[in-house]
Amino acid sequence: MTPEDSLAQPYRDAIVVDGLNVSNWDSDAVYDSLNAGGVTAINATVATWEGFLETVDHLARWDARLRERADTISPVRTVDDILAAKRDGKTGIIFGFQNASPIEDRIDRLALFHRLGVRIVQVTYNERNLLGDGCYERVSGGLTHFGADAVAEMNRLGILIDLSHVGERTTLDVIDASEQPVSCTHANAKSYYDVHRNKTDEALRLLAERGGVVGATCIITFLKTGEDSTLPDYVDAIDDLVQRIGIDHVAIGTDFTQDQTHRFWRYIGSQQGSKYPAWYIDPNVRNDQRLLYPRGLETPDRLPALADALSDRGYRWEDAEKVLGGNWMRLFRQVWQP
Amino acid sequence: MTPEDSLAQPYRDAIVVDGLNVSNWDSDAVYDSLNAGGVTAINATVATWEGFLETVDHLARWDARLRERADTISPVRTVDDILAAKRDGKTGIIFGFQNASPIEDRIDRLALFHRLGVRIVQVTYNERNLLGDGCYERVSGGLTHFGADAVAEMNRLGILIDLSHVGERTTLDVIDASEQPVSCTHANAKSYYDVHRNKTDEALRLLAERGGVVGATCIITFLKTGEDSTLPDYVDAIDDLVQRIGIDHVAIGTDFTQDQTHRFWRYIGSQQGSKYPAWYIDPNVRNDQRLLYPRGLETPDRLPALADALSDRGYRWEDAEKVLGGNWMRLFRQVWQP
Repeated sequence: MTPEDSLAQPYRDAIVVDGLNVSNWDSDAVYDSLNAGGVTAINATVATWEGFLETVDHLARWDARLRERADTISPVRTVDDILAAKRDGKTGIIFGFQNASPIEDRIDRLALFHRLGVRIVQVTYNERNLLGDGCYERVSGGLTHFGADAVAEMNRLGILIDLSHVGERTTLDVIDASEQPVSCTHANAKSYYDVHRNKTDEALRLLAERGGVVGATCIITFLKTGEDSTLPDYVDAIDDLVQRIGIDHVAIGTDFTQDQTHRFWRYIGSQQGSKYPAWYIDPNVRNDQRLLYPRGLETPDRLPALADALSDRGYRWEDAEKVLGGNWMRLFRQVWQP
Repeated sequence: MTPEDSLAQPYRDAIVVDGLNVSNWDSDAVYDSLNAGGVTAINATVATWEGFLETVDHLARWDARLRERADTISPVRTVDDILAAKRDGKTGIIFGFQNASPIEDRIDRLALFHRLGVRIVQVTYNERNLLGDGCYERVSGGLTHFGADAVAEMNRLGILIDLSHVGERTTLDVIDASEQPVSCTHANAKSYYDVHRNKTDEALRLLAERGGVVGATCIITFLKTGEDSTLPDYVDAIDDLVQRIGIDHVAIGTDFTQDQTHRFWRYIGSQQGSKYPAWYIDPNVRNDQRLLYPRGLETPDRLPALADALSDRGYRWEDAEKVLGGNWMRLFRQVWQP
């Protein structure tokens, strides 16, 4: 009996897709947890601040990792690959960038990364890059010439655009410029909880009008209940988005950071990957998941409880299925095969 | 008799500094022309769109070139090096970047490049980089967090900041943020000739108030007389700046591109160094200087005629000396030794 066999139906039959997971990919526990949670596919972060060569190295390492762990994970290039992962009881790994920094100054590299399997790219991460401005940048200049070309090229290739950490002006510009629906793989509504990283109603509305999907995030920093959050509080954030933009446009994007260390937080919280924040302490200390996620949803193995919590909130199963993975599947099907 | 001995006094005794020269550094004619023109020092462009490794290679090549041509050129790290070049009848080579792209995402690299001899860095070139937005970018977001740190670090190190190709918002932000005077090594006033690359009165005024210097440029694209320009038309552009911001703040920055090829124009006119403009024809065709610069000032060997033209315009010699090099020397002395 695999862990998945222990899951109750109907969750056991559902396609469960996590819009954002940025865990420690060298930790066995990460894969055990995904497997125990019956997670069908994840958008696995390959790069946040990295440039070209470092990212190519990360992808090379990922290929080795996929071979080494072929019993529990499989690479995702197409929607069929996700269906195959479901059938085989594995977790499909979608390569995603949280920043377009890996292409540096060359649009051509988008096609190269697409060939290497990358299927989701965030326009920029927190701050400035050549495409646009992030949500924590001190200026909000919007989409550049280079950025407009990058959007067109991602449309052409079939790379899903992600706007989670993108600043407001650039977010609106990209939604407008993109000929394909776009995503926020992991963000909540600013009207629900007013922090920089959450998205404005205007952005959410436009994104949904164009067929996009938002993955509600459960990291407590972006939940209004903060460190007191429990699983039902995450359902509040999901339900808030559903009320705001409709059941067909809301999914999950946990932002799980399982077994990451302070070195990771120092890096992703830095300025451009190189200027570290002052709160850095010991780079080798590992995450305490209980301090980062709602009680009851600390790691992917707890995701079956989310299905129950949605049911408790009165969601019909067909609607819960959309949130758990159906909406991501529809969007991937549309965008990845342009 | 060296070519310089043939120059008439008082020009022969003057310090002549060109704020921007971006010629083909592998062409013998370039050095012959600088020598014949008695040019004491130039801001020699090392990089426009290049990233870190390519730029380090360029600097390595420059060190070899300085050894190979030690009879006519010498490296400039300090104002004394310029005085020594004058004394020795050589042209001093100041390493300058037209873009901060070589530091990529690491502020630390400014110190490294300073150690390698770089003394002038333009904040951004035409378009977006991590610091700010260029004059041809479709958005004008201003100075970023990373950019503000870079300005502070250039102040600390003693690197002269250049704003010639920088967009309006970023230009104003940098003048405001910098604790040292800054420069436009090669630009004219937008009120004199209204093209994107020329600078607004507000920017010019603020720059001058803080002690900065503008090198009037003679490339015909930025002269209002265009392809009909002659040397006196360049004097018009110089004199316009003198009227606008005062004799102590105006210098020369020819933007000479001697013996460059269409490959060069395609590169510098590209988007981010990688997307080439449509007008590209044959990459190996060399410049016709007569199509790019005013008649009578096609190359550096004609600079003695500029001294005469300033005199014809009624400039006292002590004022002509400021324009020809004195103002750059004052600014270098202040900024390079913070």
